[in-house]
Amino acid sequence: MLGPGKARLLELIRDSGSISAAGRAMEMSYKRAWMLVEEMNAAFQDPLVDSTRGGPGGGGARVTEAGLRVLALYRSVESTAARAATDEIATLLAMLRPVPDLG
Amino acid sequence: MLGPGKARLLELIRDSGSISAAGRAMEMSYKRAWMLVEEMNAAFQDPLVDSTRGGPGGGGARVTEAGLRVLALYRSVESTAARAATDEIATLLAMLRPVPDLG
Repeated sequence: MLGPGKARLLELIRDSGSISAAGRAMEMSYKRAWMLVEEMNAAFQDPLVDSTRGGPGGGGARVTEAGLRVLALYRSVESTAARAATDEIATLLAMLRPVPDLG
Repeated sequence: MLGPGKARLLELIRDSGSISAAGRAMEMSYKRAWMLVEEMNAAFQDPLVDSTRGGPGGGGARVTEAGLRVLALYRSVESTAARAATDEIATLLAMLRPVPDLG
């Protein structure tokens, strides 16, 4: 229903007021950006994005109150999760090969 | 370096002893499964999968001790994270449209 890509798309729509601009910023097609928005709107009880499709000047889009709430919760889940698992993540990262210093 | 797909692939290699069987179980090509294994082996200080490529009977593969450790840590990060964010996740899920009962 929501993952890193859709969450980022929502943020970009919130900031740009445009589904196509948001999609472009993520290097996805206009069609794909719309499809993701439609998926999100279908998955939640209230639509997350309110939009008027196209026309010459391009339609406008805004993230609804429900969308902003979902976004805030999603980011909060991420930070709560990362905070709780900090030590395990550090142990895992310590097993990675060091990235060569390119400086 | 590691996400849900690679973690699942590691588990399937551990259980099947074969990179191609593991890839097949995830409906990915032999080539892609090998590429993911090579990425993991390159990312970590110690290889996560030990393998002998192909030949008539097909090569064997096993997850190394480092691989098992990484896998355990990864799954542990997931469960720690999910446990910590239980309430926020429940709030988010409650905003979803109920899935129609198909029974």
